[in-house]
Amino acid sequence: MRGLVYHGPGRISWDTVPDPSVQEATDALVRVEAATVCGSDLHIRRGELPEVRPGTVLGHEAVGEVIEVGREVHERRPGDQVIVSSVSGCGRCAPCRDSRYGQCRGGGGWVLGNVIDGTQAEYVRVPFADHATHPRPAHLSLDEAVLLAEVLPTAYEVGVRKGRVGPGDTVVVVGAGPVGLAAVSVARLYAPRRIVAVDLSDARLRAALRLGADAAQLPGRLLADLSDGPGADVVIEAAGDPDSFLLATRAVRTGGRLANIGHHGKPATLHLECLWRRNVTISTGQVDTSSTPWLIDLLSLGRLTVSPLVTHRFGLDRAEDAYDTFSSGPDTGALKVVLHRRAPEAERQETGRELASAQGR
Amino acid sequence: MRGLVYHGPGRISWDTVPDPSVQEATDALVRVEAATVCGSDLHIRRGELPEVRPGTVLGHEAVGEVIEVGREVHERRPGDQVIVSSVSGCGRCAPCRDSRYGQCRGGGGWVLGNVIDGTQAEYVRVPFADHATHPRPAHLSLDEAVLLAEVLPTAYEVGVRKGRVGPGDTVVVVGAGPVGLAAVSVARLYAPRRIVAVDLSDARLRAALRLGADAAQLPGRLLADLSDGPGADVVIEAAGDPDSFLLATRAVRTGGRLANIGHHGKPATLHLECLWRRNVTISTGQVDTSSTPWLIDLLSLGRLTVSPLVTHRFGLDRAEDAYDTFSSGPDTGALKVVLHRRAPEAERQETGRELASAQGR
Amino acid sequence: MRGLVYHGPGRISWDTVPDPSVQEATDALVRVEAATVCGSDLHIRRGELPEVRPGTVLGHEAVGEVIEVGREVHERRPGDQVIVSSVSGCGRCAPCRDSRYGQCRGGGGWVLGNVIDGTQAEYVRVPFADHATHPRPAHLSLDEAVLLAEVLPTAYEVGVRKGRVGPGDTVVVVGAGPVGLAAVSVARLYAPRRIVAVDLSDARLRAALRLGADAAQLPGRLLADLSDGPGADVVIEAAGDPDSFLLATRAVRTGGRLANIGHHGKPATLHLECLWRRNVTISTGQVDTSSTPWLIDLLSLGRLTVSPLVTHRFGLDRAEDAYDTFSSGPDTGALKVVLHRRAPEAERQETGRELASAQGR
Amino acid sequence: MRGLVYHGPGRISWDTVPDPSVQEATDALVRVEAATVCGSDLHIRRGELPEVRPGTVLGHEAVGEVIEVGREVHERRPGDQVIVSSVSGCGRCAPCRDSRYGQCRGGGGWVLGNVIDGTQAEYVRVPFADHATHPRPAHLSLDEAVLLAEVLPTAYEVGVRKGRVGPGDTVVVVGAGPVGLAAVSVARLYAPRRIVAVDLSDARLRAALRLGADAAQLPGRLLADLSDGPGADVVIEAAGDPDSFLLATRAVRTGGRLANIGHHGKPATLHLECLWRRNVTISTGQVDTSSTPWLIDLLSLGRLTVSPLVTHRFGLDRAEDAYDTFSSGPDTGALKVVLHRRAPEAERQETGRELASAQGR
Repeated sequence: MRGLVYHGPGRISWDTVPDPSVQEATDALVRVEAATVCGSDLHIRRGELPEVRPGTVLGHEAVGEVIEVGREVHERRPGDQVIVSSVSGCGRCAPCRDSRYGQCRGGGGWVLGNVIDGTQAEYVRVPFADHATHPRPAHLSLDEAVLLAEVLPTAYEVGVRKGRVGPGDTVVVVGAGPVGLAAVSVARLYAPRRIVAVDLSDARLRAALRLGADAAQLPGRLLADLSDGPGADVVIEAAGDPDSFLLATRAVRTGGRLANIGHHGKPATLHLECLWRRNVTISTGQVDTSSTPWLIDLLSLGRLTVSPLVTHRFGLDRAEDAYDTFSSGPDTGALKVVLHRRAPEAERQETGRELASAQGR
Repeated sequence: MRGLVYHGPGRISWDTVPDPSVQEATDALVRVEAATVCGSDLHIRRGELPEVRPGTVLGHEAVGEVIEVGREVHERRPGDQVIVSSVSGCGRCAPCRDSRYGQCRGGGGWVLGNVIDGTQAEYVRVPFADHATHPRPAHLSLDEAVLLAEVLPTAYEVGVRKGRVGPGDTVVVVGAGPVGLAAVSVARLYAPRRIVAVDLSDARLRAALRLGADAAQLPGRLLADLSDGPGADVVIEAAGDPDSFLLATRAVRTGGRLANIGHHGKPATLHLECLWRRNVTISTGQVDTSSTPWLIDLLSLGRLTVSPLVTHRFGLDRAEDAYDTFSSGPDTGALKVVLHRRAPEAERQETGRELASAQGR
Repeated sequence: MRGLVYHGPGRISWDTVPDPSVQEATDALVRVEAATVCGSDLHIRRGELPEVRPGTVLGHEAVGEVIEVGREVHERRPGDQVIVSSVSGCGRCAPCRDSRYGQCRGGGGWVLGNVIDGTQAEYVRVPFADHATHPRPAHLSLDEAVLLAEVLPTAYEVGVRKGRVGPGDTVVVVGAGPVGLAAVSVARLYAPRRIVAVDLSDARLRAALRLGADAAQLPGRLLADLSDGPGADVVIEAAGDPDSFLLATRAVRTGGRLANIGHHGKPATLHLECLWRRNVTISTGQVDTSSTPWLIDLLSLGRLTVSPLVTHRFGLDRAEDAYDTFSSGPDTGALKVVLHRRAPEAERQETGRELASAQGR
Repeated sequence: MRGLVYHGPGRISWDTVPDPSVQEATDALVRVEAATVCGSDLHIRRGELPEVRPGTVLGHEAVGEVIEVGREVHERRPGDQVIVSSVSGCGRCAPCRDSRYGQCRGGGGWVLGNVIDGTQAEYVRVPFADHATHPRPAHLSLDEAVLLAEVLPTAYEVGVRKGRVGPGDTVVVVGAGPVGLAAVSVARLYAPRRIVAVDLSDARLRAALRLGADAAQLPGRLLADLSDGPGADVVIEAAGDPDSFLLATRAVRTGGRLANIGHHGKPATLHLECLWRRNVTISTGQVDTSSTPWLIDLLSLGRLTVSPLVTHRFGLDRAEDAYDTFSSGPDTGALKVVLHRRAPEAERQETGRELASAQGR
């Protein structure tokens, strides 16, 4: 089959690779209908994740059809349309029994496109398929469904839930990339007083407004605005750099919560000489995808706005272009780029329309 | 009357000062039977808290007898034996209604020995006396009772409760000064699996064992021990310096909680490049003393071990000596030093005995 | 002044009574701009609350203007437009410090129109005014504001919060009177999957739909619908009779929560032979009005729909008619009836319009 | 093999039955080293559980050695010494993913000795063995370990945890049978102010004192004592009859929690005319055994006193006698009766000694 292979720092290509197959009794083999590119994939392409060995097929988010299952897969069968979670879990170890699949000690956790071949390919072997796949409701489009593989669970579990967003809260989201924007959308469910998105990119700030933010600002403006009041009840850091984190610690009110989602590559400075007495709670975390069934439900019920999150569509074989488009998102307005097995006319048209819209027309 | 006056960085003295009196209708005038010295007082003596003006009588923890009350004090009357909390609250503002007296917007919070005259004196004016004083049960000694003014509530509210210590948890307390040790004692109430105290002072490590720690270690030993396992469920930072905080972030397990109690004077480095994915919760905070009635109750019931926390006793007029003894605690084994209005024979004897014991005989 | 006086079972009248005045230093005297009638008032009129002595002015919900304050009232001053909570609190006793004003041991709790004269009058003496009154935002109408005196806090604190309504929950509200309907409105804040209101009155079921219920059903239909699935995550009982409570216990799923708001006059049967193994949590409770500031805020922000809750308006002097209209609510569609000090043209017109609407036109 | 077979209401006998074997890939076959008799077994013997068909081998608690495992059992292997939980779980359905194994929809839950053959036999087939068995630490005796199969998890999960027992609480346990007594032991972990056990049996009241209750009383005495104060913070009902439940509702304070563990055969009366305003929380539930690993840990650490819970030991082949002894427990002082595969001298001796002790000497 064909898949997107990592060949070392800076080098990826769409290659012919061996067909995957069911290896473990708990595996499913899935034909990929749609996959997507994550910020972590960009880190991998730059060679920043040493655990990813050259030769690995990348990608950890997908929607597809089950082709074959191992004999210990009980909940899925060939022909099922499924969402493939970025995180799998053995279901038997202590963290899994506590729904912390991201910490699985039995061979699960984030493995796809990381320590085993991933989803940016025609087929993918999914370990622990009973846990790692979810039925896709027929009325959810591929573009909507693929957001359930990681983006929405991350925004909810690591941002909104750890930040304990509640009715009447002022919520600041620092970083309006796909996950930050998804956090805006999910936070809306909780009747906050006000959601403010912060980013350096005009295109992303506009997207934040489309997704339900009450305000979308540059960092400097945020601090100016907050200086009048007590600060935010909840700050969600979805950027992953020291400056954003610093901004987040300044924006949170005494007694507030700072939920870090961002994937950081460097240490940050924590101003404990101010914060030690301010009753602040800072959380970090990685997604468990334990909330996926609930989010599928909410999306199916029409409770969540997500369509502005997908800005570009490509054929699977154009994965390299998709990486380039995605990595220039802050400039071009690209948010989630979705790779489709079948890439019809729609691709060019929709991409054109969205781009125009993202550019402010 | 006589009181310990701050005269600018490095200068304190036991002086004659004007007698305090009831000024506001919610005040009480209290004759101090016992007061104590807090780590914050050392910061003040060094001139690190600019809000403390020269001329201020220091001290914010006391036990005493109510001499006079303003006309809006309804719960106390002259002759009552009371514990004076370090934090008062107007009881009417939004934070006070939510039991967050430390954030009072109506003139309360930590004011004693900070923005108004404090407790290291013969008499003290206590604002918002209905909230800031608590009846002292007759069978609690002055030394036990004075720990309820701040040490025990801080250990519980900012350490044990924010750290959510629970049954079966492994708890690490970094910094075995008075508040850290009190956290050891309070954490014992929650059936932890194991409590490990960490400090550089042998005397303090021995005190930790007397207060119920299962182990007491130097920092290096802690990291070596933890390297075999997942780390601590809860780490309580009670030292307040960047190295201790760093140690705390290394000691906490994935999914664990780090509760900072320490009063920090400098920023710390937060290794988000490791922590971002480790599901860690970091909390900071200052005491509200909302738990004081409950702690009085537990201490009265004999559920808390606290007697090893008080190592030295002085007459009030020897407050300067008390500061010196306390500030050299890591070397001498001094923990809480209590200033008594009546300092009989017992002073020298007990101090001698405890010192011997603290030095390991 | 004039006020509505209870003269024994079945007998109330609009009489001349002595003018109230500030008696305690914590009192405020309030001129009533709007008051309303509660289900408890009907219990009182029937003589079912023996603590209410003949001669008492009834009513415990109001909006008005502060005329005079005692010397210990610090947060309000003459001229303030305020919401008068049905529950006051001394602010100093243990329950009050824990925000459980309904359990105040210092003379607060529910006293208005119960053990002291109440709000269905031209003026009312409000004890513990700092706690029992809240500033009324200028843009909230009298009709909206008076719902904050008891209806909304009760629906939230005793129903939605104790029932722990959360995202994705199926919520059943049994009893679509004013408090049940307010629970529908407040539950909407928490992104439930579905809210089902149950009542025997067509007019009330229609009101439930206007307030945001996804379905409004007769009891028999509810049970039929639920028989297909697991039952409701949360059931809020807002009717207060044994049959409604029985229905609520049947409607709740295994693992669900049943929050009783209803004021019951008789025992109910609890089918423990079924329920013992069903992991059900049943809560009861009375309002504390500790959530009022937050609800004022949410209502001000436009996050809550409440206007359909007020169906009738009367001049204060027509309080007797208001009782009759309110007590026949299940038939006439009357929900909250509001008594206004100034009852202009609007009274007849609006009442007429709402009635027509309530009757399905 | 031999096992205790139910033959219809009132009839059980120790019979030869077909050897069990691994049927499903997730099964384990376990040789029973020790089993015990539960109150539910007495309900079954009386014919009160219609789902138990004649011919079923009874029993759902055991300790034993794994003899054989199905190919989908990954965590256990032949030779392992295990505790067999009374509840199993498929691990894949929604309730199992949420650790609510008792509500398993995939064929688990309580099935042993209920809808399939149970543990009062020489061998037992254990479905979903990865979830339903736990390694037995070598230093736990059979008698201690068998309490982890159901008694301790039930006392903790349904009593202590749902009742939210905390430091300083007054706890009343109504019904001092094995589970009620285990609740006394587990509640001790939380530094309560006072634990009061209530029963009609003198022998059981004495056992309660041995297990750490501060007082052990007849029901009438409890009510007399409570009439002076606010009532209990937590009441645990572990008797399962209407009178006990009524007593529990009277004993709980305003704002308190009533956790029902008892297996009820009849409805109870709920005095909502009193309780509706008393902020009481009533919970029911069945064990999930999700806490078993933690309880194994606590017992291994010596944190729990349990030895007085086992009063009698029999050879497996004397299971009928064990039922008789257990069912007369309120009179004879019998608590848990344990059936051992190897029943040496110790049996007669220990039983004799314990009986003497239970009868008060």
